[in-house]
This record gives sequence, structure tokens and C-alpha cells, in this order.
Amino acid sequence: MDMKTVLQDKDLNQLVYNALSFGTAVMLGAFVYFLTQMNSVAKQYRTGVAVSAVVVGIAGYHYYRIWQGWSIGEMNEGYRYADWLITVPLLVIELLIVLGVTADRRKALLKTLVPATVLMIGLGYPGEVATSDGTKWTFWILAMIPFAYILFTMFGELKAAGSRETGEIASSIGNAAKILLVTWLVYPIGYLFPVIFPAGHQGAEAGRQLAYTVADITAKALYGIMILNIAKARSGDTR
Amino acid sequence: MDMKTVLQDKDLNQLVYNALSFGTAVMLGAFVYFLTQMNSVAKQYRTGVAVSAVVVGIAGYHYYRIWQGWSIGEMNEGYRYADWLITVPLLVIELLIVLGVTADRRKALLKTLVPATVLMIGLGYPGEVATSDGTKWTFWILAMIPFAYILFTMFGELKAAGSRETGEIASSIGNAAKILLVTWLVYPIGYLFPVIFPAGHQGAEAGRQLAYTVADITAKALYGIMILNIAKARSGDTR
Repeated sequence: MDMKTVLQDKDLNQLVYNALSFGTAVMLGAFVYFLTQMNSVAKQYRTGVAVSAVVVGIAGYHYYRIWQGWSIGEMNEGYRYADWLITVPLLVIELLIVLGVTADRRKALLKTLVPATVLMIGLGYPGEVATSDGTKWTFWILAMIPFAYILFTMFGELKAAGSRETGEIASSIGNAAKILLVTWLVYPIGYLFPVIFPAGHQGAEAGRQLAYTVADITAKALYGIMILNIAKARSGDTR
Repeated sequence: MDMKTVLQDKDLNQLVYNALSFGTAVMLGAFVYFLTQMNSVAKQYRTGVAVSAVVVGIAGYHYYRIWQGWSIGEMNEGYRYADWLITVPLLVIELLIVLGVTADRRKALLKTLVPATVLMIGLGYPGEVATSDGTKWTFWILAMIPFAYILFTMFGELKAAGSRETGEIASSIGNAAKILLVTWLVYPIGYLFPVIFPAGHQGAEAGRQLAYTVADITAKALYGIMILNIAKARSGDTR
């Protein structure tokens, strides 16, 4: 008897399987790397690098879980949302630490940004697991409101911080801003794959999983490297 | 009932199984060792040693996965390619860090070398999983173009760096160059085993797995030790 699979198309099923394992490996590799780099930045930025490490460590755990489920023919989207519920607020926090935002301003920003991330993810989930296109669209629109607010605010903080700086620091901030913008836009597009393509379309389902995986790697591991670069540049270490 | 095996020849099947377990153990051992050695080199080379640790850590994860699959009679070549996709760019990066290449030159080199590694591995995969000799040859030839470019560039950087140095530093660079050249040439040869030998040849399939395993150990763990030796020699610590 054949093994149970999530996608009937064997090649696409295997492709997603490999991508999930790849995601696990990248996250765990980044986890170790960020831990080794903590002491290479000035004291006030170390918490930012530690938070980056925690983010990819948690993501590595969830990718391992998703991969394991996929290997026995099960897909639990709950793992993605549980992961995002923990890691997205942390991604906001790590950025504000290395941008050198004052403690008071950071507190004020987090008071609205953290609830907005919870709202965004909480509103996204019912649409993700729904089968009706109408429900998916409704929750997509609702989740896009906090999404737009978070992205707009973080991008604004990046631009403001970049304009206060010059040289290596300014360019590392500019790179982080680009990564943030491009990556975050992948999520709402991947979310809509099941609406855009006909129901049960194997390529669309595989595409959605691949899009989320690539976006997670970029938004967490590559973004963590950008955070580390900002922290290193600010510590007077431009290597 | 007999267990499902990848190779029908029991002894060869067991030999590969043991080699994969050996590979896992060496990679994880090297991972711990490189982490312990980070602080034994000067600050500017620590990232190079950290990257070496990440490379063998990720390889250890993939060898564990390949070994586990083999133990239940399955071989997923995707693990090797997922591994190489992450680790080969990192092998280039760790070398450039310890060779003392200037930051600007390193950035310029990485802009062509990293895409070349992705191209090489992406072109290798379709031929690896294909069954027709023609397809295997086609992708082998295509992948050899970026392969030759990467190897030629890295070997050139090693020679240039070696000629700038004397004594312990020059000899440690010379050793790294030899390891690089000999090891990398194993991969394209192992790739062609299924073309050279008749289809289903048990020894050829076992030989390919053993060749890749030995080459991975040399190209990652032994090469990591060479990287560490260069970093130590440059740090004025020749023990």
C-alpha cells in the first residue's frame, strides 16, 4: 500500500517535503550562528541578537514539526500560526533594539505594535483554515488592516533611523528595510493562492507552502543577519 | 519478511548504512569542536570559524536524515542537494573571511560566487534524479560550468593569499588549497558512477554514496580544520 501523502502529485509532495526540511536546517543553522555572534556586538545590542536567535530557534522547532507531519501525510496549519504568534512580535522587538530607538519611544511603539501582530495573526487563521473563498477574502481583508499598520510603522522607523545615520550603518539599515518590505508582501499573496487557483489545485497548494517557507527563511534568518549587520555597524565593527 | 533495503546486496547496503552513520558522527563531532575553538582565534576570524561550525552542524542534520531514510529502505537525494544549497555558499564565505580578503573585494566576489553555487547545485539535481544517461550527461556538463568557475576563483584566491604570506600562514593556506582541489573533484566523478556502470549496478550505487560521504567529510570537516589552522596562524597562535 502506498504511504499517505498531503498532495496526490508525488513530485510536488516531495518538493514541499524537501523545502520543509530545508527550512528546518536553515533555521537551526541560523540559530547556532546568531548565538555565536552575540558577543561580537556592543552590549546594548546583544539582546537584539539574542531575540533573533530565539526567533529562528522557535521557527526551526515548528518547521521540524510541520515537516514531520508532512512526512506522514498530515498538514497542520496551526503550527505556522503558533510560530508567527510568538515570532512576529519578537521580529518587531529585535528591530527596535538595534535601530537605537529610545526606551520610551520603543515602549510606546510596542504598546500598539504587539497587539497589532496578535490581531493580524488571529484574524488570518480563520481564513487560512476555511474552505470557502468568501471567508478567506473576509479574513484576508481584516488581517490586512493590522498588517498594513505594522509594516507601515516598521518601515517608517527604518527610514527615520536610516536618515539619522551615514556610511555603513545607513546602508545596513537600508538593506534591512528592503528585506522587510519584499518579504512581508509574500505572505498575503501566498494566503490567496487557494482563492486565485481552482479548489484542490496541487501546484497552488505546493506554491503556497513554498512561498511561506521562502518568506519565513527571509523574514527570520536573512532579516536576522540584517539585524546583526546593523548591530555590528553600530558597534564600530564593519567587517 | 525481510526489511526493505535500498540496495539488494546486503553487505553493500550495510556498508553504506555504516558510512552514513559515520558521516553523521564526524559532522556533529566537528560541530562541537569548531564551537569550542571560536575564542582561540583573533576577533576578525571568529565569524569564519562560526560559519564552519554552522556548515558541519547543518551537514550533521542532513546525514542523520539520510541515514534514517536508508535504515528504512529509502534514499532521498534531495537531502544532499538541500544540504549543498545551504553549505556550499557558506564554505566560500568562511574561506574568504580567513584569507583576509578586504571587505569590498569579498562583497564583489560573493556577488558572483554565491549565485554560481546556487546555479551549480540547481543544475546538478535534475541529472542526479534522472534515470536516462543523456539527461545525466547534459546536466553534468551544465553544472560543470559554474563548478569550474567557483573552483578556479577560490583556488586563485588561495594562491594569491598564499603568495602574500610566509611561514606557518603560507603553509596552512597551501594545505587548504590542496584539500579544496582534491575533494571537489570527487563530486563530479561520483555523479557519473550511474552512467559509467551498467544500470542497477549495486557496487556503483554504493560507491557513489561512499564517494559523496567521504567528499562531504573532507570538504566540510577537514576543510573546516584547515580554515581554523589559517585563522590560528593569522592570530599568531601556531599551536
